[in-house]
Amino acid sequence: MEKMVKLNSNFRKFEGRPYLFAGVANKAKEFNKAHPGVLIRLGIGDATESIHPLITSYLAEASLRLSHLDGYDKEEMKSSEMKKALHEAGFDKFNGYGDEQGNELLRKRINEIKYGGRFSLDEIFISDGAKCDTANIQQIFSQDAIVALQNPAYPVYEGSNVIAGRTGKANPATGEFDGLVYMPCTPANDFQPSVPNRRIDIEYLGSPNNPTGTTIWRSTAQAHVDNALAQKAIIVSDCAYERYIKDERDMHSIYEIPGAEKCAIEIGSFSKEAGFTGMRLGWCVVPKTLQTEDSDDKFNANWIWNKRQTTEFNGAANLIQAAGLAVMSPGGQRVTQGLINFYMENARLEREAMKSLGLKVYGGKSAPYVWVRLPEGRKSVEFADAFLNEEPHIVCTPGSGFGSAGEGYIRLSAYGHRENILRATERLGKLVLK
Amino acid sequence: MEKMVKLNSNFRKFEGRPYLFAGVANKAKEFNKAHPGVLIRLGIGDATESIHPLITSYLAEASLRLSHLDGYDKEEMKSSEMKKALHEAGFDKFNGYGDEQGNELLRKRINEIKYGGRFSLDEIFISDGAKCDTANIQQIFSQDAIVALQNPAYPVYEGSNVIAGRTGKANPATGEFDGLVYMPCTPANDFQPSVPNRRIDIEYLGSPNNPTGTTIWRSTAQAHVDNALAQKAIIVSDCAYERYIKDERDMHSIYEIPGAEKCAIEIGSFSKEAGFTGMRLGWCVVPKTLQTEDSDDKFNANWIWNKRQTTEFNGAANLIQAAGLAVMSPGGQRVTQGLINFYMENARLEREAMKSLGLKVYGGKSAPYVWVRLPEGRKSVEFADAFLNEEPHIVCTPGSGFGSAGEGYIRLSAYGHRENILRATERLGKLVLK
Repeated sequence: MEKMVKLNSNFRKFEGRPYLFAGVANKAKEFNKAHPGVLIRLGIGDATESIHPLITSYLAEASLRLSHLDGYDKEEMKSSEMKKALHEAGFDKFNGYGDEQGNELLRKRINEIKYGGRFSLDEIFISDGAKCDTANIQQIFSQDAIVALQNPAYPVYEGSNVIAGRTGKANPATGEFDGLVYMPCTPANDFQPSVPNRRIDIEYLGSPNNPTGTTIWRSTAQAHVDNALAQKAIIVSDCAYERYIKDERDMHSIYEIPGAEKCAIEIGSFSKEAGFTGMRLGWCVVPKTLQTEDSDDKFNANWIWNKRQTTEFNGAANLIQAAGLAVMSPGGQRVTQGLINFYMENARLEREAMKSLGLKVYGGKSAPYVWVRLPEGRKSVEFADAFLNEEPHIVCTPGSGFGSAGEGYIRLSAYGHRENILRATERLGKLVLK
Repeated sequence: MEKMVKLNSNFRKFEGRPYLFAGVANKAKEFNKAHPGVLIRLGIGDATESIHPLITSYLAEASLRLSHLDGYDKEEMKSSEMKKALHEAGFDKFNGYGDEQGNELLRKRINEIKYGGRFSLDEIFISDGAKCDTANIQQIFSQDAIVALQNPAYPVYEGSNVIAGRTGKANPATGEFDGLVYMPCTPANDFQPSVPNRRIDIEYLGSPNNPTGTTIWRSTAQAHVDNALAQKAIIVSDCAYERYIKDERDMHSIYEIPGAEKCAIEIGSFSKEAGFTGMRLGWCVVPKTLQTEDSDDKFNANWIWNKRQTTEFNGAANLIQAAGLAVMSPGGQRVTQGLINFYMENARLEREAMKSLGLKVYGGKSAPYVWVRLPEGRKSVEFADAFLNEEPHIVCTPGSGFGSAGEGYIRLSAYGHRENILRATERLGKLVLK
């Protein structure tokens, strides 16, 4: 019989392993149906505070300008910083396809603010959010590349490589996929991933790490960069939560580490620093200086990523990029700092409340996630279910969903209205852990 | 020596084959630098007319509402159709992550307007544009699937499968990639692709086809559906230009064809029907009833696509989906019909002008592209270069860039301000073809 169309069997490797966030959402939905208004949701890392009018005014203005074929006249342009920026970006009149790589002015601002202007603009690519870039970036590499990632970690690193066929099956006991190299991040190593003692090709490094809310120190990052240089491996640095970092010891960007421009890609996001989760805006830096075994002047990661983006992507929405310009303006940087401070106060309140239960608490100092060690012997999913359904009716995320080293932990998100955080801490104050 | 990280060598297959639109853009840029203001651009299929205030008012309103934590009060909500829709969609207040599958109200409207409500909402997925879906949809299928496509065709069908490794090298003479099955669409077969006389697994069918501007008849589509059902192959129907269709004989959606719900995926777009090229909004229908060799109740194309989208995508921007709701309102349907009529009058003017040169002209009656047969012996790229640099200084797109069967043709886009189309026809009226 002739061969017939088959589906991508890599997807079978997920069977029975529901996507973590969807699973939590479904349980919360069920409880909420039975007991409306009771739940406090600290499960998902989704922004809850409204966007500052400084930013939405850019959006509204750019929206209305799409009904105009002509840009501002000279007088109008001079009337505000916003109008100047919208004009310079070409967003003061109708616009069609932008560059697949993103608006030049926005790339310039990111280059200046995040990287001190060190890159050329064709090394920076605007995206529709860090999740997509994180998933797509693996397309740069050969099919047989060995992939390393933190354990626990943001599930997309793992999932995208499963779909791409770089793994075997999941171990039924641990949930770990054959063929991936997991780097445990636990209190035993201060959440600093050790350099793997075997050959790897691609390594995802998230700092601050989601879910642990812990950071990677510069010294740790240097060890990983040195190893990557020695092996000609590539680091994918995920800095989506970078602006929450407070400690001098921590890296903000991998490019602060000498040598990183030869071995590291970096993925950034507006989602968490500006409350843009529903807006879909991020960026990716792919330096031309990246070195791999087979790269040369023409065939290199930057060329490939550009080819990938021009072939399979059509740029982030121009309107959303206009909002990005607002965030990157001096006023935008100021109001988003206020937002970050707000969420970090939430994190502090959550840390204190969980500590008062006698639990060990990690993270939450330079990231909007609090990582809570459960009492000896308690399992993440079972604990999270009880936390939701019995007491204190708070939605959290079971740590085991982020990797085997997350077993015995839960993650609390610091995204929430203050009144809800205070309601949560009040309930936690009365809780007696069984 | 140990294996070291290598790049995805599939990208090497593109070397020396620059992405068509980028190539045209670069040549135009160079000419424009030397002779500013002379060029008339009919090269790219990019909307040129501003977006109707009816639509941008949704956008501006939804933008400003992002600064509010509370939605409209009851009185406010009743005050307009727009406010009712924004409220129902949850866009009348700050919103974070939406469903990866897209806003439910928008899916409902698409289901009603495009498909008479025949699908369940979990068979419809909102995307950030048809280009991304067109590129990503191949991830559903096994690596060894045999892919068929029209020749000429939208380059993403080919490019995404090259990147995924489903092809061999490109033939230096024709540009065709080994392993792909090309279905010629030429005047000889009335641009109706024949059912391949060999086994295929995935088949891309674009109608109206970009670049030829020609359509697929229902009878042709029925033959392809019957073949797909017999072979358990899957058709990917690209209907991005569907609303330009005028002829009763043509299919608008593949699902008008009996049996298609068992063998066809469909990808749609707001780009061309609403001038949304810079907005990035589209959709994809993946019916649960699709049958492949290994599909079952749990493991099927719909489940896989949902898994793919939840793992690697985070939804289209909510704000842009609000604009989609505007397009799907009765007023939105009316104003976008006006836009379509405008571009189609451009197409008519271009057809007439090219015919008056004694050239054979195709397309342009149910699509915003005019496909022009060049005088015997003239090559597409050489002709397009002369058309740009010598006379009449009009940017067109060489047909050969869309496939070997496009050699000897150019594509004129009907997207342009009327004054530019008239300038172009005037120049063409004075042109003497060498």
